[in-house]
Order: sequence, then structure tokens, then C-alpha cells
Amino acid sequence: MFFNDFIALSPRYRAALINSVGGYKSLCLVGTTNGEDTPLYNLTVFNSIFHLGASPPLIGMVVRPDNGDAERHTLWNIQKTGVYTLNHVMTGFHTQAHQTSAKYGAEVSEFEACGFTSTFKVGFSAPFVGESRIQMGMQLREIMPVALNGTNIIIGEMVSLSVPNDALDTDGFVDLAKAGSVASIGLDGYAKGRLLSREGYAKVPVPVEE
Amino acid sequence: MFFNDFIALSPRYRAALINSVGGYKSLCLVGTTNGEDTPLYNLTVFNSIFHLGASPPLIGMVVRPDNGDAERHTLWNIQKTGVYTLNHVMTGFHTQAHQTSAKYGAEVSEFEACGFTSTFKVGFSAPFVGESRIQMGMQLREIMPVALNGTNIIIGEMVSLSVPNDALDTDGFVDLAKAGSVASIGLDGYAKGRLLSREGYAKVPVPVEE
Repeated sequence: MFFNDFIALSPRYRAALINSVGGYKSLCLVGTTNGEDTPLYNLTVFNSIFHLGASPPLIGMVVRPDNGDAERHTLWNIQKTGVYTLNHVMTGFHTQAHQTSAKYGAEVSEFEACGFTSTFKVGFSAPFVGESRIQMGMQLREIMPVALNGTNIIIGEMVSLSVPNDALDTDGFVDLAKAGSVASIGLDGYAKGRLLSREGYAKVPVPVEE
Repeated sequence: MFFNDFIALSPRYRAALINSVGGYKSLCLVGTTNGEDTPLYNLTVFNSIFHLGASPPLIGMVVRPDNGDAERHTLWNIQKTGVYTLNHVMTGFHTQAHQTSAKYGAEVSEFEACGFTSTFKVGFSAPFVGESRIQMGMQLREIMPVALNGTNIIIGEMVSLSVPNDALDTDGFVDLAKAGSVASIGLDGYAKGRLLSREGYAKVPVPVEE
């Protein structure tokens, strides 16, 4: 099928289509705290996470302006406290993770509402997801507003990382298929992966001498 | 394994680690033209593509400052011509796609060097990859420099889209596993997906009346 008039599509069809065709997406539960004396812990699934750089370790994340309460509470908490966690969604709890996108009120913790365990690391106030095998502690570095569509790109620096030993290769590569991480397709699709190959560093072929 | 001192890691280990743990990444061959009278067509694999919005359909892409020639030629061409294509990497040619990341000179077309077919759509000067089943024509909308690490985020608007009928659901969802699209892990890992489920729109449960 060929499309070149996206405005003619219904908003729902267009959203499903455009969200899918960008390709497989990274999927994380984002954990935050409201920073009060009796803190409330927020948890929301995001499928708009992207690698921005390794040195320093930076990860970007797109927050939509119109996604109701879930993403907005996350943004508020990150702006207020400067910290958050990224926790991979694993096969076995992707349905539960999807449920965190429902419009729970600001007074509800999605950890409790959706059945996740909040865990903590010393000196870091944002909650991790105990069920996740890949957990990142993130410090806010910058929020870049995108004037084109009113989204915000949150850029964070990774300050801690937990990965399972059985998925960590000797050279630092983490095999996400072995770890059991889930990828996102579109707005509501969830996929598991199978590693096809790792390729060597690509070089321009040297012409054979005659 | 727990990490919290990334500077202590060797640059190569750190790059492999941090590039992997962000999660599965979208993978596209980016086709450009240098816009000359006798045009030269450039093709480079990118694994830093992310969905930014559906209305208008916007896709972001991170270009590294230090990735040698391949990404730099792509950036030059996009800046000069304002157009480019995104073509999904499919199972069956991911090794060939990886090869486009080698440091070919500006005078070499990776289409020819790596064995891809350039195809064209009327009124659009950037080349598509004939072997790809999901092809997007993109118009440059904005280049956002990221001061934190010297990367640039290229934001483009989708102006055309080809998707295979056998992977397009009636509601606009595209099943990337059925299409045969490949996901990226880290710097050099390639994975295929299997759809686990599509979930319904998540709602806050209504309490049962007593």
C-alpha cells in the first residue's frame, strides 16, 4: 500500500500507522517520585526512548503534550526531582506494563495499581522496578522542547546500570534477546526478539592486486 | 552486574554496553543524493531513528559528530537537498546493510558498493532501496544540535510511505515481524522479532460495587 496524503487518514488510523512504521522501539517503564516527605511513586511505560551517546551515557525520551495524565505526571516528577529510572519491560509482564498507560490519578501509584515492586538504590530517590532485569538510574540533563509538534525530549545521563550476567558478553554487548527484553511496535504491539548475528566492524574492501 | 562508574570502563566496552542497554532500536538505511547534475547516491545504515509524532508524521534521527564519513555524507546531503529516504532493513540483507557503515569515500555510492538497487518516486530526488519492504520519503524539517555531546537530531516529516499489504492490519497497525523488519541491538547486533500481543487501550479499572 502506498500513502502520500496522511491528513486524509482518520486520526486513529494515522496514529496506528505512523507509530508502527518507524520500526521496532525501545520499551521501558519509567519510575519517578513526587519528592514529597511521604513520597508517591509513579510508573509509566514509554516506547520513545533512544540512545543519544555513550560518552557521557545519554538517553533521550519523547514526552507527548497530549497523552493525558500518565506521561505528564512523569514529566512533572522529573522536572521537580531531577532523577528517574528506566526499567526494561521483559517477556512475562508486558501486559502489566501496558496497563501503566491508563489514566490513573496523580494520587495513585502505578506500582501498586499494576502490581510492580518498587526497589531502591542507596543515594537515589527514584524507584526501580524490581521485576525488571535491566535497570538504569538516570539524572536529568536537559529538556528540549520540539516546536514542530509540542513534544519535549527529555535527555538524561545514566548514573547506574544493572544488567543480568547471563546476557552480558565479555566485550560489553548486552544480548537483549537473552535478557528477555521486549520491543514495542506501534502504540499497542509487543514483540520479543531473536538475535540473528553480530557483525564485525565494517571496512571498505581492499581491491585485490592483479 | 552493577555499573556506576562509566568513565572507568574502556571506551570500546562502554560504547558496546551503553549502546545495547537502551533497548531494541529501529534500523533503517538512509538514502540521499548529493543533488549534482550527475547525482551520486549515498546510503548509510542508522540505528538511531525514533518516532516523534503522528500528526504531522515526524521522525527523528541522531547523527554523531565523530562517526567518520558515512553519517557525515548523509548529513551534508540532507542539508543540501532537504530530502532523504528511510528504508527498513529486512531479514536477508542485514549483513549487507551493516556494510554501508564502512568508510567509503564521498565519491562512492554505497548502493553499488554494497549491492542495493536505487529506485525513485515521481517528484522526489532522494533514492529508495528497492529491496526494502517499508520505504519512507522524508522532508527535512529541523536540525536540533545537542550541546551535551555534539550530536545533531535531524527531524523529518514523512511525505510518502510504502508498506506491504500482508503486514498492514485494517486499523493501520503494521506488523513489523510479519513484514520481516530487523531491529538493532547495540552497535553491531541484529535481531528479528516475533509479535507477542497487541493490547487494548488501557483503562483504569472501575471498582466493583458492593
